Amino acid sequence: MTAVMPAGVGLARDVVGPAMEAAVSRLSPEVRAVAAYHLGMTDAEGNPSGAGAGKALRPALALLSARAAGAPSERGVTSAVAVELVHNFSLLHDDIMDGDTERRHRPTAWTVFGVGAAILAGDALLALAQDLLLEDSAPQGLWAARCLSVAVQRIIAGQGADLAFEKRDDVGLTECLEMAGDKTAALMACACSIGAIHAGAAPSLAMGLAGFGAHIGQAFQLTDDLLGIWGAPEVTGKPVQSDLRARKKSLPVVAALNSGTTESRELAVLLARPDDLGEEDLAHAAGLIEAAGGRRWAEAEADSQLSSASKCLAEADIPEDVRAEFMAIAEFITARQW
Amino acid sequence: MTAVMPAGVGLARDVVGPAMEAAVSRLSPEVRAVAAYHLGMTDAEGNPSGAGAGKALRPALALLSARAAGAPSERGVTSAVAVELVHNFSLLHDDIMDGDTERRHRPTAWTVFGVGAAILAGDALLALAQDLLLEDSAPQGLWAARCLSVAVQRIIAGQGADLAFEKRDDVGLTECLEMAGDKTAALMACACSIGAIHAGAAPSLAMGLAGFGAHIGQAFQLTDDLLGIWGAPEVTGKPVQSDLRARKKSLPVVAALNSGTTESRELAVLLARPDDLGEEDLAHAAGLIEAAGGRRWAEAEADSQLSSASKCLAEADIPEDVRAEFMAIAEFITARQW
Repeated sequence: MTAVMPAGVGLARDVVGPAMEAAVSRLSPEVRAVAAYHLGMTDAEGNPSGAGAGKALRPALALLSARAAGAPSERGVTSAVAVELVHNFSLLHDDIMDGDTERRHRPTAWTVFGVGAAILAGDALLALAQDLLLEDSAPQGLWAARCLSVAVQRIIAGQGADLAFEKRDDVGLTECLEMAGDKTAALMACACSIGAIHAGAAPSLAMGLAGFGAHIGQAFQLTDDLLGIWGAPEVTGKPVQSDLRARKKSLPVVAALNSGTTESRELAVLLARPDDLGEEDLAHAAGLIEAAGGRRWAEAEADSQLSSASKCLAEADIPEDVRAEFMAIAEFITARQW
Repeated sequence: MTAVMPAGVGLARDVVGPAMEAAVSRLSPEVRAVAAYHLGMTDAEGNPSGAGAGKALRPALALLSARAAGAPSERGVTSAVAVELVHNFSLLHDDIMDGDTERRHRPTAWTVFGVGAAILAGDALLALAQDLLLEDSAPQGLWAARCLSVAVQRIIAGQGADLAFEKRDDVGLTECLEMAGDKTAALMACACSIGAIHAGAAPSLAMGLAGFGAHIGQAFQLTDDLLGIWGAPEVTGKPVQSDLRARKKSLPVVAALNSGTTESRELAVLLARPDDLGEEDLAHAAGLIEAAGGRRWAEAEADSQLSSASKCLAEADIPEDVRAEFMAIAEFITARQW
């Protein structure tokens, strides 16, 4: 495995970037300022910024998805923009809900513009995403809009479960995997199939691609959870162990808590403490999670999801170069940087 | 004019209520609890509640809109639910942004469940509204979804302008009317036309109905602004003069500030004070707005919008009973209860 970004991701950023800017320019001035800052297009004063809008993974998957259906990349651009807008809608709102103050090495939008303005900017990106797909009067536009709409509902359900889990001390591994499936994997499944759907692909192909996306989404979430505990802030763009600090019931944590080991009981006591956890406590918690097998389980589960993804793709009738590029992205987003 | 609720509004509540409950039941448990509370279906503990979900004005307009196109009311139910969901999405988020603690004589959702849960519930209602319309695979479902999507964009733009106005002391009357057009009138225009659009009406009829809705929307906002200053809390369901307290640049306030009178200067000084305004200050502010002509202007403008609405309707080729019911609602929502 490698952490070198596949060429398709950089290419997607070049192709989809201008379309993202065009989409955002349709927003009203007050809302646009917040959205453009969040997306890395401008700084807090509204001046053009080279901060960059994240890795454009989902747009890259959406463009590949169009090619999977035999259409040129360009046919996937609207879908790619819509998916990326929904992803950023959820980031804007999640950062408020989670109280996160840093994202992509910059202060989060709500800390700069206020909670109200950040709520509104998120709303605007969600509405804009649907708008773009509905402007296509062909029936495929409607299908793509429905594909996205289903993903949005699942993202919201997953975030709701995630918030509820923070207050519970009896979260099971199955419901936690289901939550990750909603919160993260649903939009990945959408990204991997929406371009094909928009290009008029057969349902069987769309479903195969969605299956691939769902599996890499789970593998990605597991990797992200592992990074959130053992990754360096330079890699994550967030403060060290911010997930643990917030007592997030992430997958390795829940696996550890449900391991029935001595360490799991000690971990439960530590995470239930009412006071803030200091650096030392956090390092100790990470050690307990590892000793309880949470890290090993999450790494194995990520491998297993990646192999299921690969199987889905092997069964899909798509061009070989598209298959290879899909797999390169899957491996890139699950590379172990800890 | 009368403040007696037209029969169509109660009827809409009876017809659309069960469809609203069915729609909300599709949400995931955590999100559903907040949405159901906000909509008056349950109390804070989740028990069934007779609090009621507001006046169902927009659903009533949407049902009439279907009948305007010669379709039975029932054809308008999905549109009615979608519009009501969008209205409540915006209420949930606006209450957070505006810091409002009371709505419909009950604590607002964010004060009961927290900001994060209320953001998420709003997101869910917006996504659900689009979902419902997109489930109709006929092209009319797509047209209705686009009608709603345009309204959502304008609601967001209007709320963005409204928030920005609170920080400015040079808001003009034209931009303030435009803000109200976005924030309130756009969804009324949608409510009055979406049922017809969903029933396959000709564009000319849809546009006439949208024009009617836009005018009654402006008249409604003017009436609401007047109520916000001179209405009793029993009528508004909110604390007395909460809009003035928050220094909202509502239409009567902006008209007064732009009147060039002695009172307008005194009012500007009062509203620019950095400290909280007490009961006496608020009463004095209301007196200054009236003396500067803000109240008179807003009342005249509401009358003028109502008469434009009536003209739009007179030109539309719709059944007489539908026309009469539309006008009864228009007069009901602009009745002067101060």
